Amino acid sequence: MRLERPHRTERFGAVRIHELQRVIELDSGGAGGDPRTSVRVPPEAIRDVERDMVIVVPCKNETRRVIEGVLSGIPHGCLILLVSNSVRQPVDRYEIEAQTVEQYCQLAERTAITVHQRDPGLAAAMKAAGATDITDEYGLLRSGKGEGMLVGLALAALTGRRYLGFIDADNFAPGAVNEYCKAYSTALHLADSPYAMVRISWHSKPKLRDGKLFFSRRGRTSEVTNRFLNQLIGEYSGFGTEVVATGNAGEHAFTMDLGLKLRLAGGFAIEPFEYLDMFEQFGGVLDSPHPEVMERSVSVTQIETRNPHFHDNKGELHVRDMRLQALNVIYHSAVCLPSVRADVLEFLAGQGSLVPGDEPPRERIYPAVGTLALDRFCDVVLAEAYSLRQFGDSVDGSPEPVTQLNRARVSTGQRG
Amino acid sequence: MRLERPHRTERFGAVRIHELQRVIELDSGGAGGDPRTSVRVPPEAIRDVERDMVIVVPCKNETRRVIEGVLSGIPHGCLILLVSNSVRQPVDRYEIEAQTVEQYCQLAERTAITVHQRDPGLAAAMKAAGATDITDEYGLLRSGKGEGMLVGLALAALTGRRYLGFIDADNFAPGAVNEYCKAYSTALHLADSPYAMVRISWHSKPKLRDGKLFFSRRGRTSEVTNRFLNQLIGEYSGFGTEVVATGNAGEHAFTMDLGLKLRLAGGFAIEPFEYLDMFEQFGGVLDSPHPEVMERSVSVTQIETRNPHFHDNKGELHVRDMRLQALNVIYHSAVCLPSVRADVLEFLAGQGSLVPGDEPPRERIYPAVGTLALDRFCDVVLAEAYSLRQFGDSVDGSPEPVTQLNRARVSTGQRG
Repeated sequence: MRLERPHRTERFGAVRIHELQRVIELDSGGAGGDPRTSVRVPPEAIRDVERDMVIVVPCKNETRRVIEGVLSGIPHGCLILLVSNSVRQPVDRYEIEAQTVEQYCQLAERTAITVHQRDPGLAAAMKAAGATDITDEYGLLRSGKGEGMLVGLALAALTGRRYLGFIDADNFAPGAVNEYCKAYSTALHLADSPYAMVRISWHSKPKLRDGKLFFSRRGRTSEVTNRFLNQLIGEYSGFGTEVVATGNAGEHAFTMDLGLKLRLAGGFAIEPFEYLDMFEQFGGVLDSPHPEVMERSVSVTQIETRNPHFHDNKGELHVRDMRLQALNVIYHSAVCLPSVRADVLEFLAGQGSLVPGDEPPRERIYPAVGTLALDRFCDVVLAEAYSLRQFGDSVDGSPEPVTQLNRARVSTGQRG
Repeated sequence: MRLERPHRTERFGAVRIHELQRVIELDSGGAGGDPRTSVRVPPEAIRDVERDMVIVVPCKNETRRVIEGVLSGIPHGCLILLVSNSVRQPVDRYEIEAQTVEQYCQLAERTAITVHQRDPGLAAAMKAAGATDITDEYGLLRSGKGEGMLVGLALAALTGRRYLGFIDADNFAPGAVNEYCKAYSTALHLADSPYAMVRISWHSKPKLRDGKLFFSRRGRTSEVTNRFLNQLIGEYSGFGTEVVATGNAGEHAFTMDLGLKLRLAGGFAIEPFEYLDMFEQFGGVLDSPHPEVMERSVSVTQIETRNPHFHDNKGELHVRDMRLQALNVIYHSAVCLPSVRADVLEFLAGQGSLVPGDEPPRERIYPAVGTLALDRFCDVVLAEAYSLRQFGDSVDGSPEPVTQLNRARVSTGQRG
């Protein structure tokens, strides 16, 4: 893959945010690249990262065909981890999904793990690990997207792989999925810090206007989220900026070294809150609990893909929820300055989303997965999470025995 | 890439048509594969084919953005050859296209050739080579799609590369373009004959029905073309068949060894006529001018891609033209049996496309490019085709000097 070389980087303390880089070639052959304009990562280097990467696929009531397409786009070396929050009655859609994954793994001779978010055993495992707030009044894991991704991160930690990427299951273009994964690996290969994140900004979103296709460049939620995140950064530096282009990026990846240190938010607040948590923990405004990260700094790469983002339209309500939750975490962040807070309030009131004088609700923020007792999580998950399925076997001589989540790796304290 | 292993092959004399094979993984890592179900080609083998492949992009009035997207999906090793039939007045769209290609080649450090189909120098070159029927009453190359692709083949022959693939320029998904190219290289790598062709059947075509996306599996033209081609094969073998799934495949590739021997049809008849010409030349029904091909046989691979085919809707008229031209060449083929002819007539009459008692018109069939005097074509093209542009330089140490079409290779008589 060949990427544009970024020419500007904004800093928020130890967090380095590189400006958006476009994908120039999906498949660029060898290494090198004109250092003034582009950077080129050869397939072998990409493959090395893939073999060390878990792709977590949060899934909610997608059809077999769409899921199969998404799986076909994930590079062979990656371990697939599907976290489903699909309905189980009257038809058990999770069973259908798990069968789809199983058949696919047989055909493609590869490995995957599936689990259902509302599996009581999973909630028990999270509780045993010390995450108590993540369960609801029924004793089950909360239903939000962020909660599913958090579980994905915890399970990924048990595989011993060093990278994690998220791919939403509602993608109609397997080629786009493939591009996202290649972009993850390319950026993580290039990252000059063990604490690295890569976030995707899709090229465009095809929409129908007057019977014709229109390729919209901006998402309705992202525009607002990015504006306030940029305002927050600008207020500190004294210079306005537009560096953040991926505030709501569902498609993103990170090194486990970084991911295990991040506190994650519930629901749709998870993606924008990652920025805020990095600013809080590593921004130099508040004391950092991780001096080793401060020393090496955090690298955030943003990549504009070539493929349009071609997915199901989840409707206005979904968009509204995403936007509100993003603004709620910005407002309540400990690093948010009063002027940004005031503008968020004004915006919400203008939208009719908040009664003037009220405060936005607080979203749930969970402790970093690295602070949980992952060995206990592993024990209980393997013993009690009956929805957990592990398919396939290692055929490539990949380092870890992927047929079993690997308790040993965790209890040696290698992570976290 | 990993493909389904095909389990059935139909023969028409020396032409072996393999049943449709689905893509299982876009990126399958290493080699191997369970021999009962799938076949896996490693990236290195794919890259070797790409470095020896010209991708011809027929283009007509596409926007910069769409063209740039298509280019970004073509693997780096391939030489890009854009054959434009865009309008040149009042705005010279070809100039815009050539600039787009130039800028892209600078950024991606790769090589490309562009030419305009209606360039008088190109027509002069084709005439000098012995192709007289291909020019119209203005002395210019005819405007059809087939004519543009034929010129692409002739130019590709001058590069000395061994493979040629076609990618239509009206594709909105760079990831799909990438998948098509990978499918070409995978199939050509696997082919067990120097005379090999690979044809793409897209997975589905997204359409809007009642405001919702519907992924239609069948194209309106392909269904009809495939039906009659299959009937033709079935009438010879005595067994009905559905083996042909790619009668109208715009996306297809072949070895130059095969391509230079094929007579090509003009307009939209080019794709279905390739089947008919193979049946005529290598089907064993008529005498073959190429005993060496009869001995090695011809391998036709058909691949169902994972990506939906996401392109501009060219309208009903376009579809009707395509269908009619396909049926015309089937009807007039020297290997078409009377029963198939009768059914074609009945179908056309039923559609109101033909007055009962009339014959369908004949499409133009051109002599095989390998029979042309390509050394003279090269001389005149380089001297007189002012629209011809060659961009970039070889950066990968690829074998040929792609900054110049290579007359030497042709005049040694290496091809044809």
